[in-house]
Amino acid sequence: MGNNLLKGKRGIIFGALDEKSIAWAVAERCHEEGAQIILTNAPVALRFGKIHELASKLNTEVIPADATKIEDLENLITESMEKLGGKIDFILHSIGMSLNVRKNREYTDLKHDWMLKTFDISAVSFHKVMQVAYKMDAINDWGSIVALTYMAAQRTFPEYNEMAESKALLESFARSFGYHFGTRNNVRVNTISQSPTKTTAGSGVKGFGTFFDFADKMSPLGNADTASCADYCVTLFSDLTRMVTMQNLFHDGGFSNMGINSAAMLGEIT
Amino acid sequence: MGNNLLKGKRGIIFGALDEKSIAWAVAERCHEEGAQIILTNAPVALRFGKIHELASKLNTEVIPADATKIEDLENLITESMEKLGGKIDFILHSIGMSLNVRKNREYTDLKHDWMLKTFDISAVSFHKVMQVAYKMDAINDWGSIVALTYMAAQRTFPEYNEMAESKALLESFARSFGYHFGTRNNVRVNTISQSPTKTTAGSGVKGFGTFFDFADKMSPLGNADTASCADYCVTLFSDLTRMVTMQNLFHDGGFSNMGINSAAMLGEIT
Amino acid sequence: MGNNLLKGKRGIIFGALDEKSIAWAVAERCHEEGAQIILTNAPVALRFGKIHELASKLNTEVIPADATKIEDLENLITESMEKLGGKIDFILHSIGMSLNVRKNREYTDLKHDWMLKTFDISAVSFHKVMQVAYKMDAINDWGSIVALTYMAAQRTFPEYNEMAESKALLESFARSFGYHFGTRNNVRVNTISQSPTKTTAGSGVKGFGTFFDFADKMSPLGNADTASCADYCVTLFSDLTRMVTMQNLFHDGGFSNMGINSAAMLGEIT
Amino acid sequence: MGNNLLKGKRGIIFGALDEKSIAWAVAERCHEEGAQIILTNAPVALRFGKIHELASKLNTEVIPADATKIEDLENLITESMEKLGGKIDFILHSIGMSLNVRKNREYTDLKHDWMLKTFDISAVSFHKVMQVAYKMDAINDWGSIVALTYMAAQRTFPEYNEMAESKALLESFARSFGYHFGTRNNVRVNTISQSPTKTTAGSGVKGFGTFFDFADKMSPLGNADTASCADYCVTLFSDLTRMVTMQNLFHDGGFSNMGINSAAMLGEIT
Repeated sequence: MGNNLLKGKRGIIFGALDEKSIAWAVAERCHEEGAQIILTNAPVALRFGKIHELASKLNTEVIPADATKIEDLENLITESMEKLGGKIDFILHSIGMSLNVRKNREYTDLKHDWMLKTFDISAVSFHKVMQVAYKMDAINDWGSIVALTYMAAQRTFPEYNEMAESKALLESFARSFGYHFGTRNNVRVNTISQSPTKTTAGSGVKGFGTFFDFADKMSPLGNADTASCADYCVTLFSDLTRMVTMQNLFHDGGFSNMGINSAAMLGEIT
Repeated sequence: MGNNLLKGKRGIIFGALDEKSIAWAVAERCHEEGAQIILTNAPVALRFGKIHELASKLNTEVIPADATKIEDLENLITESMEKLGGKIDFILHSIGMSLNVRKNREYTDLKHDWMLKTFDISAVSFHKVMQVAYKMDAINDWGSIVALTYMAAQRTFPEYNEMAESKALLESFARSFGYHFGTRNNVRVNTISQSPTKTTAGSGVKGFGTFFDFADKMSPLGNADTASCADYCVTLFSDLTRMVTMQNLFHDGGFSNMGINSAAMLGEIT
Repeated sequence: MGNNLLKGKRGIIFGALDEKSIAWAVAERCHEEGAQIILTNAPVALRFGKIHELASKLNTEVIPADATKIEDLENLITESMEKLGGKIDFILHSIGMSLNVRKNREYTDLKHDWMLKTFDISAVSFHKVMQVAYKMDAINDWGSIVALTYMAAQRTFPEYNEMAESKALLESFARSFGYHFGTRNNVRVNTISQSPTKTTAGSGVKGFGTFFDFADKMSPLGNADTASCADYCVTLFSDLTRMVTMQNLFHDGGFSNMGINSAAMLGEIT
Repeated sequence: MGNNLLKGKRGIIFGALDEKSIAWAVAERCHEEGAQIILTNAPVALRFGKIHELASKLNTEVIPADATKIEDLENLITESMEKLGGKIDFILHSIGMSLNVRKNREYTDLKHDWMLKTFDISAVSFHKVMQVAYKMDAINDWGSIVALTYMAAQRTFPEYNEMAESKALLESFARSFGYHFGTRNNVRVNTISQSPTKTTAGSGVKGFGTFFDFADKMSPLGNADTASCADYCVTLFSDLTRMVTMQNLFHDGGFSNMGINSAAMLGEIT
């Protein structure tokens, strides 16, 4: 049971695929804190995932939307406001997919039309969501928009490939749109830079296990898991963080500010 | 009325002087969220301020401590645990004072023994508090320690003088001790980089009004005020942010990531 | 007359349009320091600019290349190596163009297919140049690659519009490719984050004059001009900086680390 | 033989102890580039080191100065101007010593009076040098001041202990004084954040070897050595970087922007 932190608030959650998804956990926690939620994902993801299970658990609906398509987003927001009974208070963007990674292209041998498609899906979709919501004036004043990102936007994790650039782009959209949405509506926009997380998507990346363990040992608190990320999202959607905007917030057990940790090095020897 | 976010938690708040103090507001909000609080300040500050009013309002006590003195801090922590009935869950460090600023010394004409004293009061005190608590094993696992800082640690605000260096130091202590406290106890340590705030201390600084207004216009959400800072502290003391550590968190209405804002420039013309 | 800092080195300079271009000044300075240079620009830019004047002054040639086209880049690098007589030692990427800015679209009302085209021209072109050079093994060990960027990649300058995201992307490519090129060839990759500069391109942006003056007054040394930027590029192409890589280097008279400067505020009043 | 980059310039180099010192290499390279140099170090360091060898090699003199003493610094600058025949063009600050590290105190068990002494020696000395030079108006317009620092100022390297805070302080002094010196004299102030280096001082730190190797493998170009650091200092003292100020410049083979590198992890297994 929660603390009523989001009582009366209406939110849209992008990207819940299955119970390992961060978006799944966020939706559950927001519901627990008193929010009404609309779930959405791309039509193709809806087929493979279990999002309808989640919807029935949260007593809500799934509105399919391809986040790269303006008309889908317009429909999503219109329908969400109808079903939730008013303007939206918060949005979670948890979308990412790399065509070049899927096809095992090396970073020094990428197909650039795929790269642009990756950017469109993983980052430009965030601008599209915000632009549609902004133009429709669909977000309540003092609302909160969050996207999930990764530290590859700042430092090089070679296996992360073109997703590094996608996340750099995503974080820049948060800052830029944060200015516009803040100035007009006091709506804040932030990104959460999350530890590597054992989601269905993440776990598929080459060398993910080694990487997960390295980060876990390097971080004084260990890697942040899905449940703690959901809790953190709740704080960012609540009114308690109403003056935090245009920030990239590390939720990573301290990884981002560690230079060296003998635990990580010893870990490798054993 | 709160949301029980800190129910059952025990905290120590440094630096409440009067009702304009951030520490004052934080103490009130933590109490409202269900925490038991011990208030503390330097003996000299106790004489000028109204901290005893606050203590009676929160049904608690003031334990005087000069945060530059190890023995005062040992006594504070021992007595706090006795009175609160157990180990401490959270600490707020809100202490800062510059001798050179008080004496109107220019940054290019500082007295260096005063500078070291400023560092001792404004920053080394934070290390002392943590070291004493660490050695006494006085913080519960998954506890949270926060210090208030200012963006002069990253960028130059000439009037801020040697407090820029004090804050750089303070933020570094948070990272370094965050590693040790995190590794042993999963205790997290963070700093909040707050907007210029109209406290009794802040308002005394030369040119504070101009500076406050500039920051207010530059920030898409305006300057963060004391009440919002208190709310933000609550989230950082709550379990919802348990994996955030070693971070410097901007609580500033977006100021830190603005490059230029025509509102700020227009503001100057009128 | 120079100091022979680039004696015997071979470089390719993208983006010289006319004598106000930074790339123009860089080409002249590199020549002065003893380097042999190939100039290149997009076919359309060649028609409007005066690059052939520069080529004859530097006793070299222009090889047209649309930096968004792999085959143009392959041809450019092949021909450059032939004409210069060996592998390349340094490259300057100075390319940027925003379709949405040209068409006066607001940031909250962008056309996303134009945005992707902007990214392709202004940022992905940098990855393409590096990928082509990497696959052809065309860069000498300890070579140096530099791209010009702007601080809008870190902070919001609203008029800069989608170029903020383009520059965030560009800087990320520098880090990511810097890892690969460094590991295989000890080639370094950096970006220079330059003051606003009165180029033909820059001056066309809405409100550029106000913005230029604000930055000039905010910076303790004033804005960095084209000549100083060319000098700085020379150091980055020389062997003297051989261990600097994956960095974004501010060349801005101190702007990036100023929080407030009374000179900038006073400037606005007069 | 050099490139005359510092022809006619006058510099003061702090901190050359023996031929492994970075300051030693910088002095040699500056001399080679045409500068006249005054060497200085603390009286106690003069006894143990070989600085007089260097002085005779560079055909110059050693002026002893305890950099924590204003009167010593005043004397140093007065005598330097006399001997060099004019105002100073550049200064290198390469001074650092931690009392707590020397005495093997853990970071969670520091003596705070020693800490303040460490700060005085390792960081406040930099402010003192600049303040003395500023008040004496001893630096030529467009001069350049550099201090050597380490990335522990940004991220936690536990063995680095209170030197992390010393370097955070040092870098803050560079920004703050850079504003003042830049505004009045166009003098720039920067710090170089150097790879771990096998100096006599550095090598003595506990676990230095492991740490050096880790950084070396993590960095795409490997650790930057003393010779490359000296070259980089030359560029920062030359007029070619005249618009770079208030920056902390990583000279580290790319370490600072690496998140993970399989080379570093594999290195540990073997």
